[in-house]
Amino acid sequence: MPLQFADRLNNVETSAIRELFKLLGKPGIISFAGGFPDSAMFDVDGIREASNAALSQDPGAALQYGATEGFGPLREQLAHFMAQKGAKEVSADQLIVTTGSQQALDLIGKTMISPGDKVIVEGPTFLATIQCFRLYGAELISAPVDGHGVKTDELEKLIAEHKPKFVYLIPTFGNPSGALLSAERRKKVLEMAVKHQTLILEDDPYGDLYFGEAPPPSLLAMSASVPGSRELLVHCGSLSKVLSPGLRVGWMIAPAELLARATMCKQFSDAHTSTFAQATAAQYLLAGRMPATLDKVRAVYAKRAQTMGDALRRELGDAVEFVQPQGGLFVWARLTGAGGKVNDGNVFAKRAIDNGVAFVPGTPFFCANPDHATFRLSFATVGEDKILEGVSRLAKAL
Amino acid sequence: MPLQFADRLNNVETSAIRELFKLLGKPGIISFAGGFPDSAMFDVDGIREASNAALSQDPGAALQYGATEGFGPLREQLAHFMAQKGAKEVSADQLIVTTGSQQALDLIGKTMISPGDKVIVEGPTFLATIQCFRLYGAELISAPVDGHGVKTDELEKLIAEHKPKFVYLIPTFGNPSGALLSAERRKKVLEMAVKHQTLILEDDPYGDLYFGEAPPPSLLAMSASVPGSRELLVHCGSLSKVLSPGLRVGWMIAPAELLARATMCKQFSDAHTSTFAQATAAQYLLAGRMPATLDKVRAVYAKRAQTMGDALRRELGDAVEFVQPQGGLFVWARLTGAGGKVNDGNVFAKRAIDNGVAFVPGTPFFCANPDHATFRLSFATVGEDKILEGVSRLAKAL
Repeated sequence: MPLQFADRLNNVETSAIRELFKLLGKPGIISFAGGFPDSAMFDVDGIREASNAALSQDPGAALQYGATEGFGPLREQLAHFMAQKGAKEVSADQLIVTTGSQQALDLIGKTMISPGDKVIVEGPTFLATIQCFRLYGAELISAPVDGHGVKTDELEKLIAEHKPKFVYLIPTFGNPSGALLSAERRKKVLEMAVKHQTLILEDDPYGDLYFGEAPPPSLLAMSASVPGSRELLVHCGSLSKVLSPGLRVGWMIAPAELLARATMCKQFSDAHTSTFAQATAAQYLLAGRMPATLDKVRAVYAKRAQTMGDALRRELGDAVEFVQPQGGLFVWARLTGAGGKVNDGNVFAKRAIDNGVAFVPGTPFFCANPDHATFRLSFATVGEDKILEGVSRLAKAL
Repeated sequence: MPLQFADRLNNVETSAIRELFKLLGKPGIISFAGGFPDSAMFDVDGIREASNAALSQDPGAALQYGATEGFGPLREQLAHFMAQKGAKEVSADQLIVTTGSQQALDLIGKTMISPGDKVIVEGPTFLATIQCFRLYGAELISAPVDGHGVKTDELEKLIAEHKPKFVYLIPTFGNPSGALLSAERRKKVLEMAVKHQTLILEDDPYGDLYFGEAPPPSLLAMSASVPGSRELLVHCGSLSKVLSPGLRVGWMIAPAELLARATMCKQFSDAHTSTFAQATAAQYLLAGRMPATLDKVRAVYAKRAQTMGDALRRELGDAVEFVQPQGGLFVWARLTGAGGKVNDGNVFAKRAIDNGVAFVPGTPFFCANPDHATFRLSFATVGEDKILEGVSRLAKAL
């Protein structure tokens, strides 16, 4: 008998990216494909000290089952971390710890989405969000973005038309767009949340990775100035991009009623996030090492972003267009077709692999109406020499 | 606007146990309620050494994103661990690492259950399994158990009648039943899987915790002798009960097609299990410390089980009946009402709290037709002095 799988699996396809990632093992390939931080940036000594402190001070707690909501001392530290980032009114009991922010997305899906519900996401948006929400039966609506993030006028029209269960946004250095939503548009998003009584989900894994001035306050921080908006806002954070993805420590701040139900769903998803990892993260934050770690990664990634941007302009010229990123991990670029050059991201990606450089074409990041000319480059995972060599290979592939 | 949650939440109720657990903070309470190992048993030094080894040998791998399937060296170690337990034909690529075995249950639910699908579970069974599968819309059917585990004749009738998506069993020292499925019944389960082409899910977190002779082989180990059964078997294991729940390291062995789909579901659930915890677990197993750790916990829990059993027989006499556990963490008992004593587990639980001792009444462990006279006692989490004092309090409450 062939196994009968759940109907929900029919809503997702095997990722085209997975196939691409298999090619990354080819010797000599320079990869701009991964959406992850550089392992060389990890503060291994700091994490070792934190882990040993956790096992010395309260080994029973660090190794035992813990509350589904999260390890108390970590929730306190994360509330403090959020306050330093401008969200001053978040108490420890207003957040739960999740197994990476991917799990926060999963819990929102499980808690909120009935099959057929509509959800608005940016076009383009994080690939795993699309698949995660579709597994719960969501019908995704794509809201257009430009260099300043989601176009709020268009978004409001879509909200009015579709009355979505919620709107999912990555306002700060979005994946893959790299875009930074302007302060003005942020305010508009919060106002339309209140006006249309629509739940907004702010995913913010990259907000700490700014290269110059700090970005505008998060929607969460800004919600204090838009009455009624805080009760319509979910905020997801993560240590993955700034400290270590391997810890799998993320968190979710949400209205109390939603948080309680998401906690119940988490109880039956994985009981709780690794207390060993949580106690380690708590000790790390308590030790006060995060500011120096952030300074370091910001400086390194800023230089790599500049190197990549300069090289792209110099070597690919008017065949590509992109907004120079002010933070995050990604350059989101578009093939213009100028000079009769290739203008399809998928074709370009295949040629690039043949030339020894990998990246992700843009189409999978759209839940509808993909822009076939787009592609995503990560500047975070390789050093400047390889960035220069990789961009040269891109120029050849073009 | 009140938030509109997903319809699936209507299928679960807030756990009655949660309310009870709130009372556990009362000073002086002796708790037989928790289903967790004793923190004092944790091999803290061994885990610290393992964690430091993981961070010394390959810190990049231990702290970076990892494959959704699991950390390679851990998968190898777990395959070896399974071989030592008699499942000799499990290769590393036939298992995936899960965030505790709770996540394996969640992934099976996500992968297999469409709303309205029938699933057979033991009556009684693990509470979080009931809730987990109901969140995916399963209709649960209860198969009766006795002191030797699920009654296979009744189970086969239920399979024939309901044609379930799968059958969920905890064959070895089940939670809450403590029962050990006999070798003869194990064989029957595998044969009926083949005969009715029904998927069997074997949850085995307690199999290593035997007190005397080793239990019969797991369904997985036994499947080698029942042609066709291996392709219809999912096996879930966990380090939580034997090493540390806080690591959140479990695993799932399943037919290839199912495992691939569960892996996809995991990708969008939490991307992967903490590589930091996985690398630590891998180093722990590699260091060869597990056999001594198992010897230690078996000896301690065996003594506690004997102490509790003897005290119950001595102090509660014919007012309760139970099978003396041969492993695991639990005594599953039944109030007989002899001598006009209380015969309702919920009433007894409330009186017990008033007398300073806590346990879980049996009714929540049934998905249908609860036996109100039952209750579950954990003997694992407190020492023998407290077990004796706690049982005295139970006698008073009775």
